[in-house]
Amino acid sequence: MQVDVIPSVAEARTEDLVNRTVIVVDVLRATSVMVTALTNGAYGIMPVETVQQARQLQGPGVLLGGERFCKKISGFDFGNSPLEYTREQISGKRLVLTTTNGTRAIHKSCKAANVLAGAFLNASACAEAAIKLRRDIVVLCAGTQDVFSLEDGLCAGLLVHRMIEQLGQPSTLNDFAMAMQGAYLQAQSNLGDAIQACANGQKMARYGFLEDVLYCTRIDACTTVPVLKNNLLVPESCSWIEQF
Amino acid sequence: MQVDVIPSVAEARTEDLVNRTVIVVDVLRATSVMVTALTNGAYGIMPVETVQQARQLQGPGVLLGGERFCKKISGFDFGNSPLEYTREQISGKRLVLTTTNGTRAIHKSCKAANVLAGAFLNASACAEAAIKLRRDIVVLCAGTQDVFSLEDGLCAGLLVHRMIEQLGQPSTLNDFAMAMQGAYLQAQSNLGDAIQACANGQKMARYGFLEDVLYCTRIDACTTVPVLKNNLLVPESCSWIEQF
Repeated sequence: MQVDVIPSVAEARTEDLVNRTVIVVDVLRATSVMVTALTNGAYGIMPVETVQQARQLQGPGVLLGGERFCKKISGFDFGNSPLEYTREQISGKRLVLTTTNGTRAIHKSCKAANVLAGAFLNASACAEAAIKLRRDIVVLCAGTQDVFSLEDGLCAGLLVHRMIEQLGQPSTLNDFAMAMQGAYLQAQSNLGDAIQACANGQKMARYGFLEDVLYCTRIDACTTVPVLKNNLLVPESCSWIEQF
Repeated sequence: MQVDVIPSVAEARTEDLVNRTVIVVDVLRATSVMVTALTNGAYGIMPVETVQQARQLQGPGVLLGGERFCKKISGFDFGNSPLEYTREQISGKRLVLTTTNGTRAIHKSCKAANVLAGAFLNASACAEAAIKLRRDIVVLCAGTQDVFSLEDGLCAGLLVHRMIEQLGQPSTLNDFAMAMQGAYLQAQSNLGDAIQACANGQKMARYGFLEDVLYCTRIDACTTVPVLKNNLLVPESCSWIEQF
């Protein structure tokens, strides 16, 4: 099985994604929001690219979430902090989500055979679910405005590491997957510090979202794997291991 | 001092290089050739982009080197194996070099304040020379056909690590520099195996160049730092630590 990591949406060519299982990773914070909302009982999540598309989908039982420039969008029910998506707020609801990088990465993956959402929160479950789909795997780091983001790379490295543990060698990795696996293994004993030092970690702290960073770097807090079915992310399996 | 790493030539925007010191890294094998040829007494190296440009520069005291598809070019004096560039062959000569990725990366850097060539062979000396130039530093991984190559990333990580050791914290790194430093530190105890496992390492072995891979992963074998002056790479300092 081939396992590739792609550093940012800008570098993802459609032909690299076709017929594969794509795991989209946007740790701060889109895929962490997706995992959290589904674990807390959201019925499904529709990722859309524009604020206008989101507003057109508003209606009974539908809540809007997302950000522009890290901030909640005017008139939306939620921003992009996973801690807002509590069971009380989201259970049984359908969520329409638009974010700068994460939802764009999902749309870029629309020609893939399968699209999953990965984060530190669901890493082991996501790696296992991807392997079970028995296709070559691409971990697509969302990045930030077409530039690589460390938190996505380290999460990709963890996903690769878990897959190698489950598949055994020799699985074929591209060079970027090898590099990210190494970077994750080097950082794992001090993951929170590494991510607080990187560009988005620092930006989150400046915007008052340090608690989000701490939350989003909790590895394997749940077993929920968001899977795209008919343009809706639904939970493949769903439960908290550590309740938050 | 800001220290950035850029994953491949495709991702290098001219505005990220202007007024900075750029270290071009193409471990397998262009920058390893440059370091070796200058250490063995080459008078200077002119990097050119096309085979035709190289042929037009042929003349007394000028030797041609380079590759296309990893192979020596018809009528050239050398291929792209650093082991060909012995003192007997190259001392006192001017070398015109054209390779698929490395010379292209040098040309992409032409707007930089300074351009150095970095490799494992000269890593510590190169990091030190870059710091002495007192500008923000960009390590530009040549990559392979616009895609990231592990050996360049690990060498960039070593360069970053040496700079941090010399500059101390807090030096500001971009996210990719942090990732590569981590990947290098994880790989350092087994660097040869890591590079033999990656795409270019495997390709080199298939083409019969395993000895080149072993040679190109020798860290700090010399103190030679190739610096671009008037389109010619000349040695900033020049000596072997370990003779080969």
